Amino acid sequence: MSTVRVGVIGAGNMGADHVNTLHRHVSGAVVTMVADIDEERAATVADAVPGARVTAAPHALIDDPAVDAVVIASHDTTHADLAVAAVQAGKPVLCEKPLAPTPAECVRVVREERHTGGRLISLGFMRRFDPAYTELRAAIAAGACGSPLLLHCVSRGVSSAPGATDELSVTGSAVHEFDTVPWLIDSRIEEVSWHAGRSTSTATGLRDPQLILLRTADGALTTVEVFLNAGYGYDIRCEVVGERGTLALTHPARVVTDAAGARSLGHPADWRPRFADAYRLELQAWIDAIASGAPSPLATADDGLVASAVAEAVITSMKNGGSSVAVRVPEV
Amino acid sequence: MSTVRVGVIGAGNMGADHVNTLHRHVSGAVVTMVADIDEERAATVADAVPGARVTAAPHALIDDPAVDAVVIASHDTTHADLAVAAVQAGKPVLCEKPLAPTPAECVRVVREERHTGGRLISLGFMRRFDPAYTELRAAIAAGACGSPLLLHCVSRGVSSAPGATDELSVTGSAVHEFDTVPWLIDSRIEEVSWHAGRSTSTATGLRDPQLILLRTADGALTTVEVFLNAGYGYDIRCEVVGERGTLALTHPARVVTDAAGARSLGHPADWRPRFADAYRLELQAWIDAIASGAPSPLATADDGLVASAVAEAVITSMKNGGSSVAVRVPEV
Amino acid sequence: MSTVRVGVIGAGNMGADHVNTLHRHVSGAVVTMVADIDEERAATVADAVPGARVTAAPHALIDDPAVDAVVIASHDTTHADLAVAAVQAGKPVLCEKPLAPTPAECVRVVREERHTGGRLISLGFMRRFDPAYTELRAAIAAGACGSPLLLHCVSRGVSSAPGATDELSVTGSAVHEFDTVPWLIDSRIEEVSWHAGRSTSTATGLRDPQLILLRTADGALTTVEVFLNAGYGYDIRCEVVGERGTLALTHPARVVTDAAGARSLGHPADWRPRFADAYRLELQAWIDAIASGAPSPLATADDGLVASAVAEAVITSMKNGGSSVAVRVPEV
Amino acid sequence: MSTVRVGVIGAGNMGADHVNTLHRHVSGAVVTMVADIDEERAATVADAVPGARVTAAPHALIDDPAVDAVVIASHDTTHADLAVAAVQAGKPVLCEKPLAPTPAECVRVVREERHTGGRLISLGFMRRFDPAYTELRAAIAAGACGSPLLLHCVSRGVSSAPGATDELSVTGSAVHEFDTVPWLIDSRIEEVSWHAGRSTSTATGLRDPQLILLRTADGALTTVEVFLNAGYGYDIRCEVVGERGTLALTHPARVVTDAAGARSLGHPADWRPRFADAYRLELQAWIDAIASGAPSPLATADDGLVASAVAEAVITSMKNGGSSVAVRVPEV
Repeated sequence: MSTVRVGVIGAGNMGADHVNTLHRHVSGAVVTMVADIDEERAATVADAVPGARVTAAPHALIDDPAVDAVVIASHDTTHADLAVAAVQAGKPVLCEKPLAPTPAECVRVVREERHTGGRLISLGFMRRFDPAYTELRAAIAAGACGSPLLLHCVSRGVSSAPGATDELSVTGSAVHEFDTVPWLIDSRIEEVSWHAGRSTSTATGLRDPQLILLRTADGALTTVEVFLNAGYGYDIRCEVVGERGTLALTHPARVVTDAAGARSLGHPADWRPRFADAYRLELQAWIDAIASGAPSPLATADDGLVASAVAEAVITSMKNGGSSVAVRVPEV
Repeated sequence: MSTVRVGVIGAGNMGADHVNTLHRHVSGAVVTMVADIDEERAATVADAVPGARVTAAPHALIDDPAVDAVVIASHDTTHADLAVAAVQAGKPVLCEKPLAPTPAECVRVVREERHTGGRLISLGFMRRFDPAYTELRAAIAAGACGSPLLLHCVSRGVSSAPGATDELSVTGSAVHEFDTVPWLIDSRIEEVSWHAGRSTSTATGLRDPQLILLRTADGALTTVEVFLNAGYGYDIRCEVVGERGTLALTHPARVVTDAAGARSLGHPADWRPRFADAYRLELQAWIDAIASGAPSPLATADDGLVASAVAEAVITSMKNGGSSVAVRVPEV
Repeated sequence: MSTVRVGVIGAGNMGADHVNTLHRHVSGAVVTMVADIDEERAATVADAVPGARVTAAPHALIDDPAVDAVVIASHDTTHADLAVAAVQAGKPVLCEKPLAPTPAECVRVVREERHTGGRLISLGFMRRFDPAYTELRAAIAAGACGSPLLLHCVSRGVSSAPGATDELSVTGSAVHEFDTVPWLIDSRIEEVSWHAGRSTSTATGLRDPQLILLRTADGALTTVEVFLNAGYGYDIRCEVVGERGTLALTHPARVVTDAAGARSLGHPADWRPRFADAYRLELQAWIDAIASGAPSPLATADDGLVASAVAEAVITSMKNGGSSVAVRVPEV
Repeated sequence: MSTVRVGVIGAGNMGADHVNTLHRHVSGAVVTMVADIDEERAATVADAVPGARVTAAPHALIDDPAVDAVVIASHDTTHADLAVAAVQAGKPVLCEKPLAPTPAECVRVVREERHTGGRLISLGFMRRFDPAYTELRAAIAAGACGSPLLLHCVSRGVSSAPGATDELSVTGSAVHEFDTVPWLIDSRIEEVSWHAGRSTSTATGLRDPQLILLRTADGALTTVEVFLNAGYGYDIRCEVVGERGTLALTHPARVVTDAAGARSLGHPADWRPRFADAYRLELQAWIDAIASGAPSPLATADDGLVASAVAEAVITSMKNGGSSVAVRVPEV
């Protein structure tokens, strides 16, 4: 098994995090190139990696002979074109979610990939590698709660990013649940509805929190709370209620403090401490598959298309007063 | 302050529990009479109370000169008539919920009470006296989570009683939430919708679990899961999500066990261990008010009417495919 | 069963708490008299109880014909004499711990009680009625952790009372553990040793925290941490490690808060919220036994003597550099 | 930074785990050689690593030009000699604890290392890299509990290995605490005492559980419970009690189950799931230091000598009826 040479496109928070993880914590990988439209930003990120080159041109990176595999962590709107380019170059690509902002654009990418005859695209639904979620999924599969009937998902953050909107709350945050729920209980989402009450006074430009109901093909119902401006911390919860019991994620804190009148467990301020292991294990699994020639165990472009179709249905419900909307995954 | 002489109508589980609590744990009360259509059952219950008499005729109990105050714990369908009789006799009455099976019947009782010019009826929404719920309510009022935006209520039991139906799941179980939510956040329920997915295979005669959405006047949304056949235990949860944080009930177990590969906390098998304190404190507060001539701090007949109107709206949604239904509280 | 007329001696925090609990929460009891050397203080406490009289003379209370039973909650140094007086008057007496400051004085009280031929004295080791401790004890007895091998007891408070000393930390606080441990595992304490390291800078006049090792007749070891100036809250813990697992008390908080970067459970500031149920149930059990003529289920004068003997042994160890000291219970 | 070529001596559980971790999860390392007296066992372990060679001769591995650095995971009695050989070969070596079974032998190794003028030996006290322990240590250093006064350490396993003895319980298990406590609170252990009560009926050949008291130079006291046959699971606990509060490790479970009358969190059956991250991060830190020429951040040979001296003092106490014994670290 030889070392996989990786090029990373995008040197923002996500890209920088991937470069650091690949370089410092993943076995069998070496980052050889970093691309960013802001070449200086690319250089800052690449600086920590001996021998890594930088470019402002993502396509140059994709085509570079010293790049065996590509990570796409640039702006959402660039994902589709870059993924297609990587596929055309015959290189494995790990694309951050979303694959594309709309189902129609996702279809184009999936078609391009099928055209090549292989599965070159992996999608960064990293929760599939989070140790807590994988243990939860294994427990469901082992029948620990019996057949699933209800799921309660909660996704809270400290504050929304500038420019947040109702739609971005769905396509950027809730979309993780749209991939996670079917993956956990092995049943696709067929019907959705969107709800909101009074918004927190700290939210600007969006209704927050939002409440989404999902109905999967097996008949299970899911409630999804997405609350970007929850204020108190980054807090991801999931409970699966089955015929014999329930399974849920625990609070991930490692240290408990008794002080000043209270026993307390800290909440992380953002996703990084919560999902550092998930990203590391996802990248390791991706590299291992490339090195050994095995199929990627990550989410696929098709998974990205499906999640995007669910998001579209939710936004349709949002625009129609919370009515139930059937999910329609476009034919490819 | 003299001792309050109480007559208890109904010697089933609930009535027997009240007799026992009044006799053994409430200060200032004495049970002088127990009524049940099955007089033998009444005798069994009264047996533990020195001097308590029995009767098969509830109206005889209400009119008995040795009865200062009446507890109604007989069949739901008898509540309204007996409450009216107690009111007409001028005696304080603690009526187990529901006040009556329909809002229309509740209206009749409330009218009768108003006619007397006083507040003689208290309604047994005992959660208002549960130490966990009262602490939760006080914390909300103190601003510990900021202004409430979302509530998540869960009400699970081991198995449904014989004869359970979709409607009884609402009027008998979810109705507790219909009283609790407005009491917690001080805002009335204005709109509801009812949802169900696949039912557990252990449920017969009803759809179970059910999921109910409530919208209160302040704009907050509430999700209510009612799952009568959850199997694993009796488990009541409530989380209030506000602008600055969340508040939730903890698991009530007092002992934690490490054994056989797991750390575990027991679940009670039914409501009795969970709400024993709530019933005791409710009865004590009722007796104290009677003895001192103060107004009853318990839920009122009006509260019972309002909860019944919410239940009716939920059942309407149930019969109309889960559509949103406005709550209409009848004029009295 | 007729009402038990109770006289309470001592109108400090503890006595006031007992008067309030007897009056408001205990069935079958009426407080008829309150005694305190500060008669005004007695009057303030008695004020809430219609018909209760006051006196500055505890012996007058003991001998009053309207007093069926006596609670002693006056200064520790008065307990022995007053208990003896109550016994001589032939009245049941609930004496707050300690029975007396020294084993020798305890012996005198026990002798006097035996002389009367009955068991008139109950001792206020209220943990025996705390729902968490009684559940823990029942679980041990049911074999839930197997045969006990080790116990870890922790007793922490916010700050020590003025005048606290090394010895008072043992006789006033640790003494609860000296009664609790044998009661939990049904084995008497035979050997002890006392240890202390660096004291907290907030302690004045005593070494704090202290660490005490106990060895019971069954061979089990117990560690007791007593930390009066723990600062953060009132926190009582107990874990029993057995051959098949462990059993421990849980944190008693009823509400969990997510706010300001942390999930937290409150600690009480003192013993009152923590042991309110224990005191109530202890008083109820005492009154029930008196009313029915059954033997008192509370701790006995002998239990007080034994706990006092353990405390004496611990103080001997304290004065001898932490050496092991055998517990010697004086013959009565 | 070039790839570090590692040779691993010992292909038992520990060695196999290290080979797997280095190969699959550590960036910048390649396992080039595996040694075991049972060459077949070495081959089985090496099989998963393309290109790795095997030998029955550990000294051949140490001297091999394709080995840049050595991991020693063979039998405890071989550690000292092999560490010395690696030092003499001028190669960085990660030696599993203990450095040697006695302080005297540790002294020999430390002398040899000093003789070379460098710090080539790292010692496998992996808890120093466990995310929970490092977070605990950082919180102490940040003053989250104030100045430490007491520590309570618990180390429980399912069942002891064949051949376990009282002494091995100290040198093999408790020794982790002897390194952890001074590392956590930055104060050396000066005095110890050993205690045991009745042993569990499932223990053969040793007294189990054991209780050890430690006194550190700062005056803090530590209680250490070591219970190899606790039966219920592998459970490591640590609480630090300081002047302003306490800090403790949480239960590490990621999923909570509600089923069959209980809420439960699983316990691992052994150390592997509990400390997998610690071993991975320890190996990564070791490799990073070697690759960059930085000093190893792992525990040193001196740390191993100190822990061994503490263990010796504990065993002296064990043989002297639990008396207090001063720790004497031999001069090097």
